[in-house]
Amino acid sequence: MNQNKDIEKKIIKTASKTILNHNMISSNDSILIGVSGGPDSVGLLLFLLKKKYEYLITLGIAHINHSLRGKESDKDARFVKTLAAKHNLPFFLKKKNVGDFAKKNHMSIEDAARKIRYSFYKKICEKKKYSKIALGHNKDDNAELVLMNLLRGSGAKGLSGIPPKRNSWIIRPFIEITKQNILEYLKFQNQKYVIDTSNTNKKFLRNRIRNHIFPILKNKYNPAIIESLTRTAQIIREENQWMEKQTEICFNQALKKKKHNEVQLYRKFFINLKTALKRRLARKAIKEIKGNLKCITLFHIDSIIKLASSITSGKSLDFPDQIRVIKTKKELYFKKEFRSLRNIGKIKI
Amino acid sequence: MNQNKDIEKKIIKTASKTILNHNMISSNDSILIGVSGGPDSVGLLLFLLKKKYEYLITLGIAHINHSLRGKESDKDARFVKTLAAKHNLPFFLKKKNVGDFAKKNHMSIEDAARKIRYSFYKKICEKKKYSKIALGHNKDDNAELVLMNLLRGSGAKGLSGIPPKRNSWIIRPFIEITKQNILEYLKFQNQKYVIDTSNTNKKFLRNRIRNHIFPILKNKYNPAIIESLTRTAQIIREENQWMEKQTEICFNQALKKKKHNEVQLYRKFFINLKTALKRRLARKAIKEIKGNLKCITLFHIDSIIKLASSITSGKSLDFPDQIRVIKTKKELYFKKEFRSLRNIGKIKI
Repeated sequence: MNQNKDIEKKIIKTASKTILNHNMISSNDSILIGVSGGPDSVGLLLFLLKKKYEYLITLGIAHINHSLRGKESDKDARFVKTLAAKHNLPFFLKKKNVGDFAKKNHMSIEDAARKIRYSFYKKICEKKKYSKIALGHNKDDNAELVLMNLLRGSGAKGLSGIPPKRNSWIIRPFIEITKQNILEYLKFQNQKYVIDTSNTNKKFLRNRIRNHIFPILKNKYNPAIIESLTRTAQIIREENQWMEKQTEICFNQALKKKKHNEVQLYRKFFINLKTALKRRLARKAIKEIKGNLKCITLFHIDSIIKLASSITSGKSLDFPDQIRVIKTKKELYFKKEFRSLRNIGKIKI
Repeated sequence: MNQNKDIEKKIIKTASKTILNHNMISSNDSILIGVSGGPDSVGLLLFLLKKKYEYLITLGIAHINHSLRGKESDKDARFVKTLAAKHNLPFFLKKKNVGDFAKKNHMSIEDAARKIRYSFYKKICEKKKYSKIALGHNKDDNAELVLMNLLRGSGAKGLSGIPPKRNSWIIRPFIEITKQNILEYLKFQNQKYVIDTSNTNKKFLRNRIRNHIFPILKNKYNPAIIESLTRTAQIIREENQWMEKQTEICFNQALKKKKHNEVQLYRKFFINLKTALKRRLARKAIKEIKGNLKCITLFHIDSIIKLASSITSGKSLDFPDQIRVIKTKKELYFKKEFRSLRNIGKIKI
């Protein structure tokens, strides 16, 4: 029994520290909790309920029914609705067919679900005056993401894992609590939760990492593997933020002109930068005109760096999504064309 | 037969590109090759022999007999000596009992072997006027190191893997060539090599990563796992170099005073830095007085950051190897004491 009580203390201590360290909650915050009905978000709800008078916060619950599992999805939504009613909290539900939305917008199920989720959260926050949205991601999620990103050759951003706080209004108070501890906490509280049985590709990969690779690493290489990956993420995340800030400053110095579909950088300024900065500037320039960095590889970025320093001018390189990079004597142009690059011909400044 | 010829082309193309990209070799370089007798270093020797007239370089061979495997070690040394004689190259041998050296200096076998190796290379380079030392590390070694470092929660430096070039005189032309390709190359050349059967702790871990984890990751998660880890290392390495440069600049701005056993930083300057820079400055300050960062954890570093911003002054923290960090109103002191911290008492500035 005492041991059970300890788990509550542990959860409260760890989450409170996370909240303090990342300045997640201010008094009078009105916090919308994204509750799927799974253990993490239900645990987070219990924790915030317990602390609401101490933090002087008000709470609400948002749930998205992704309609991915038919009746089961509806049942989960009812579970969360009942939970909200039990604790007398406002409940906001959105039902959307993610499969259809993904197909229509040529997105993966995961990307579509994320887009729907965050735009719903944002809408409710604005409409109902919530100042924060709290999400249930835990320490295992974070470690798994770091490893998954390493396995696909990610850079600093991917190795930073899940940010404890994003854009000052998305907070994850459980990011330093292990899944195991959350389950113990729920057991101690005698609190039920639902189990998400959906198995998208990405989830499939994540589940394999969780149930196959992690146990091997834990048993044979490093029993504290989750701690280790968390530590790497903590280091790299701060360094990435710092580099992003420096990149921003440097980008503005290098920038000659910017239109919605074109970025012009001073070429001589660019070629005198360190490789790391050149890479980040080239990525930023592409992101500005393309909107994202999908299908842009390190090889592409390094070829732009080579182009910038090449002797002959008037040279250009073509990239996915009609992105063309052109080197002139004084500039490095990043252009988004609206016709096929083949139809435009080799160079057009 | 044609396929065999292809492997030589591939090796030459890849290594030549690595040499060019990292500016590894200049004409008239005199290059000492560290040859253990294993496939990597023997392959590297063959490659450099093939290219010596094109690069206009002269070559020599250095071999260290670590005396870790008795007669077998002596046999390896004879093998390399014969190889040098066959190609009419100067041969430099050092025989040293690494086990004894490690014990005497309280080092691990690996650290001791590395120390002996590099100091021997350096000595021969200076004495015999070699301008570079070439080592046989390959792409698999690099990927394995990145994963090993991630599994122990390393930061950017660990995730950078093996540098292709270090201090401008240590070069690794095979760092982008896989082990598999090196073995094929040797087979094509009908060249023998020796197999190192030593199995130190670190090698043991590395062998498990190589023979156990990598095959799982390759078969079940990412067939191009070595490429992916190499990519991460390439990105992070450049960013780490950039951050090191920035840290250097910032450290000098923050520095009030430096003695051999003491570093004083301006506290107000320090506390206004970004977390990533604070961490790097604190690590650098400790390294300056302690000589290394062994036993210094992220937790230690973050506690120094907290100390620096705490309200009461005159507070201090003690760390391994008699390192004491003291906060005063205007300074942050990093001191290496030469007596036990317990005997000195709580604070002494």
